[in-house]
Amino acid sequence: MKKIVFFLIITSLSFAQIDRVEPPFWWSDMEHTDVQILFYGKNIAQNEVSVSHGITIKNIQKTENPNYIFVTIDTKNVPNQDFLFTFKNKNKSFTQPYSLKPRKEGSKYRKSFDSSDMIYLLMPDRFANGNVNNDNVASVIEKVDRSKIDGRYGGDIEGIIKNLDYIQDLGATTLWSTPLCEDNDEKGSYHTYGQSDLYKIDPRFGTNDDYLKLSTELHNRKMKLVLDYVTNHWSYNHWMMKDMPTYDWFHQFPGYKQTNFKTTTHTDTNASESDKNLATSGWFVKSMPDLNQKNPLVLNYLIQNAIWWIEYADIDGFRVDTYPYTDKESIALWTKAITNEYPNFNIVAEAWLYNHAQIAYWQKNSKIAAIQSYNSYCPSIMDFMLQGLFEKGFLKEEKQEWNAGIIKLYDHFVNDFLIENTNNLLIFAENHDTQRFNHIYPNVQDYQIAMSLLATIRGIPQLYYGSEIGMAGSKDVGDGDIRREFPGGWPDHKQNAFTKDGRTTLQEKYHAITKKLFNWRKNKTVIHTGKTTHYIPENNVYVYFRYDNINPNDNKTQNQTVMVVINNSTEKQTIKTSRFQENIKNYTSGKDVVTEKTFVLKNDIEIEGKSALILELK
Amino acid sequence: MKKIVFFLIITSLSFAQIDRVEPPFWWSDMEHTDVQILFYGKNIAQNEVSVSHGITIKNIQKTENPNYIFVTIDTKNVPNQDFLFTFKNKNKSFTQPYSLKPRKEGSKYRKSFDSSDMIYLLMPDRFANGNVNNDNVASVIEKVDRSKIDGRYGGDIEGIIKNLDYIQDLGATTLWSTPLCEDNDEKGSYHTYGQSDLYKIDPRFGTNDDYLKLSTELHNRKMKLVLDYVTNHWSYNHWMMKDMPTYDWFHQFPGYKQTNFKTTTHTDTNASESDKNLATSGWFVKSMPDLNQKNPLVLNYLIQNAIWWIEYADIDGFRVDTYPYTDKESIALWTKAITNEYPNFNIVAEAWLYNHAQIAYWQKNSKIAAIQSYNSYCPSIMDFMLQGLFEKGFLKEEKQEWNAGIIKLYDHFVNDFLIENTNNLLIFAENHDTQRFNHIYPNVQDYQIAMSLLATIRGIPQLYYGSEIGMAGSKDVGDGDIRREFPGGWPDHKQNAFTKDGRTTLQEKYHAITKKLFNWRKNKTVIHTGKTTHYIPENNVYVYFRYDNINPNDNKTQNQTVMVVINNSTEKQTIKTSRFQENIKNYTSGKDVVTEKTFVLKNDIEIEGKSALILELK
Repeated sequence: MKKIVFFLIITSLSFAQIDRVEPPFWWSDMEHTDVQILFYGKNIAQNEVSVSHGITIKNIQKTENPNYIFVTIDTKNVPNQDFLFTFKNKNKSFTQPYSLKPRKEGSKYRKSFDSSDMIYLLMPDRFANGNVNNDNVASVIEKVDRSKIDGRYGGDIEGIIKNLDYIQDLGATTLWSTPLCEDNDEKGSYHTYGQSDLYKIDPRFGTNDDYLKLSTELHNRKMKLVLDYVTNHWSYNHWMMKDMPTYDWFHQFPGYKQTNFKTTTHTDTNASESDKNLATSGWFVKSMPDLNQKNPLVLNYLIQNAIWWIEYADIDGFRVDTYPYTDKESIALWTKAITNEYPNFNIVAEAWLYNHAQIAYWQKNSKIAAIQSYNSYCPSIMDFMLQGLFEKGFLKEEKQEWNAGIIKLYDHFVNDFLIENTNNLLIFAENHDTQRFNHIYPNVQDYQIAMSLLATIRGIPQLYYGSEIGMAGSKDVGDGDIRREFPGGWPDHKQNAFTKDGRTTLQEKYHAITKKLFNWRKNKTVIHTGKTTHYIPENNVYVYFRYDNINPNDNKTQNQTVMVVINNSTEKQTIKTSRFQENIKNYTSGKDVVTEKTFVLKNDIEIEGKSALILELK
Repeated sequence: MKKIVFFLIITSLSFAQIDRVEPPFWWSDMEHTDVQILFYGKNIAQNEVSVSHGITIKNIQKTENPNYIFVTIDTKNVPNQDFLFTFKNKNKSFTQPYSLKPRKEGSKYRKSFDSSDMIYLLMPDRFANGNVNNDNVASVIEKVDRSKIDGRYGGDIEGIIKNLDYIQDLGATTLWSTPLCEDNDEKGSYHTYGQSDLYKIDPRFGTNDDYLKLSTELHNRKMKLVLDYVTNHWSYNHWMMKDMPTYDWFHQFPGYKQTNFKTTTHTDTNASESDKNLATSGWFVKSMPDLNQKNPLVLNYLIQNAIWWIEYADIDGFRVDTYPYTDKESIALWTKAITNEYPNFNIVAEAWLYNHAQIAYWQKNSKIAAIQSYNSYCPSIMDFMLQGLFEKGFLKEEKQEWNAGIIKLYDHFVNDFLIENTNNLLIFAENHDTQRFNHIYPNVQDYQIAMSLLATIRGIPQLYYGSEIGMAGSKDVGDGDIRREFPGGWPDHKQNAFTKDGRTTLQEKYHAITKKLFNWRKNKTVIHTGKTTHYIPENNVYVYFRYDNINPNDNKTQNQTVMVVINNSTEKQTIKTSRFQENIKNYTSGKDVVTEKTFVLKNDIEIEGKSALILELK
């Protein structure tokens, strides 16, 4: 009895010396076997460190701040186990337990999201408040204030879990939530891109266990979870900002320096060094210190944290925020480390650029990047050119000129030869940072055209929450306005658009189109990976075909052809099918996915103004 | 005496059988030694052909039209000489003389135009009428009618020659005249892009000898002559159209088919075969039959004709019309054949595209084209992106937004990494097919900005006749309006802007700026081949530097730095020089090329609204 008491006292004393251990644990059988553990505690660096159980310490790195010590252990071929680090300073010593956990079977080769998926993007603070008890939490500063456009509204993980059936029913197969780790900013914390603790879910969203539950619930539905990873910056209230490991952990300037937002300086052979430096080293905003990934400690911290979340929460993919705002060699190392650990893992980079070659540059094995001997190793890139077209209102243009209206869409796809893997482009009409589609185009016809496009062109379609019920909001009013509460997500909402009965007639129109299209798309390999032939638009009508490779020896290959007709003019148009003979071949009829109406292909096809046909040919 | 008379009669008889021999002669010591000679005459194909003097006939090709025979002779190692072809049909025979002329020394390695040049582009019908006696010529249809916007006005080669001093004085080193071969169209023939005889200068412009004189006069001034070659189409009244050598000499359709003008189909991996085919096979206009370069006879005809003009008229370079409207493999073969004959010969392609990668594609050894295993072999490409920016009025934009005003210019150059050889881009604010610069920007300040840019950025500047005196005109009125008569070019003109005394005060302002800038540029290797560093524009001010590679072991290398400041805002701006320290280095002052005012670099630089500084640093 006495012995036990004594042991507890020792343990208690030793734990008092360590405030943080990151990563808090690791796994056996990983590719990343040199685990660099950050120990943080008052004057921790004054200790000698050793480790039990025959585990090897490969490196101990101290910095100018004595409160940090980075200990690298070699876990190669070490079975899963609990073990102890011993910290010893003169005659005093204490221990710190650590674990190598058993790895889940199949973890390494986990399947990720791809062009067979449809991604539903939501902002958890604004989607649904499943637990009003965590709206305000003592440990974090900002409290709920739904009267402010940029306030916290109380949405959380429980709110997402409660509505997974809704999301699945809509045809989504993958969930991308904006970041969920703690963001302890005084204001604007709801968007959570300035994180203050990278190993902890923000308590206003829930617990780490809640996040695991979300992952499990999705996997039970055969759905996937995409984590929104931020490599570029943290919160000004990140715990390390109060006691920095090294002076160069963040990009420091005499006075504040904002990024020039010109990430084209990466590729620009004529860019000045000062402009190039400011693009990646300047801060986004004053509240988000910019990480210096050229510091190997920082880079490795980000690599290990990323891998930790994948392994811990069984993550299926990443979306990476502001990808080209990071030193390009560092972000490539980060990306490569993750895809080395998980060879099938998909990562989609936010490379917000409006030039096809510039976008192509950031994709893995890009031939454009090869011009400059660069490879980001990032498998997927967001197609911001396409989003830009929606945002600039090309669907509203009715001119018959050579460069107006739907021609712009055609002219966009024309440059796809620059893209290494077009199936791995994320395609979207909007997201949480852009103008709302339904604000630009406040009518269901344009929405149907846009969704028909997203459901049938190359790439991975992404839908932004609320659009499927016609939700609008304007970026001109403020970012908060494009991130409104989903009706039915809060106890005080008078309407519940999560249910059919709760939706207005107009909302149901939007919803039915979305549901129909994306449920149809789910098992259409002809859309996921099929070839494309498109035709120069005439009279503001765009016609293209998706079709499979016909391989008679492969029973799995669907031999399908889908003909898509987009009429962007307000007038009814007549399509002469003879022009498309090279794709129509011997097919005789086509059945529209939405209306289920059948068209005979030897005849002209009549299509109403501002509408789309998706014909499965027979 | 009798003998001589007999000979003359024989000759006369034999010549009666042959209406055309093309090329009319060739040269010894050429790379292109297999000369395929077209003989055209009534039932010429019924003859057996032989040749004297031990020259070998390698091939005789007949077509479905008996009036043509294509005889390929091998001229390899054959010294220059006159010789005879003999045509024999049963018992009748006749001869046709042919010549291999001696080649001019240094012909093969002739120097061509490059970034050290400034090109003056003019349209000969509209520049100056040096000889009123050739305004109307019986052998061609269209007569002078200066009342019609698209009429012939009478300008000619003599008019150009008379004003070469003017052109040279302006700072131009190279002349590009739009085509000069006979165009026997009923109307609109003045532009001469629909040619009816590829071996004869249009008699309304002068004679072949006049063209040789133009070439000689230019060379006497150490200036260069660029010929405007049209590979894509001929006149409907081309002599071959009346009696086609083969049915597929031109692209034939059931009914007329216009090109879809979408040359992006060349690179578009999703383009339909029908769209691709129509892009290159469709006709530009009904009056210009589209040549089928896939027919080897056609392609070789165009290759030989092109080489013939270079050798015959001592041409220094080509501009090629509608380059991507030709089958891309054929046009590459054409281009390669010419640059094989003249390894230093420069050819600039009109690739009228508004995408950097698309433009890059058409340049020799392009890494973009290599993605599709293509190489056009064309050394120089027109920078239509830049011209498009001028045309879209970016200089008028005063907004401080991230994508407005001078930022657009910066954003253009940002993509230069896609271009294989930026020094070999033709840079221009306008040409004979675009809106007039002075129409879009009717003020001398914008003109000075544009000329300051063209005189200092990478590439080969091209000036369009008349702009240097503020000449305007609008494409909206008609193509003819952007091709007005140069004042002083016609005897009845009341004003003569070719002379300083004849110019108005405003015209002289335009002229003086032009003359100053381009004469200054002539020997500035720092501009011709120097490096560039540019800075992200701030407050609508764009700053860039041109500087030489500093090679202390090379005495020929100029060690120069030029700082260019373009203030596109209407407000005076203050430039903090500290931002540009990486380029300013130890230089202490800069002298403006136009005003000769000196600026001290340790101080801020003040620049007036809507103006440009070109500072030579010291």
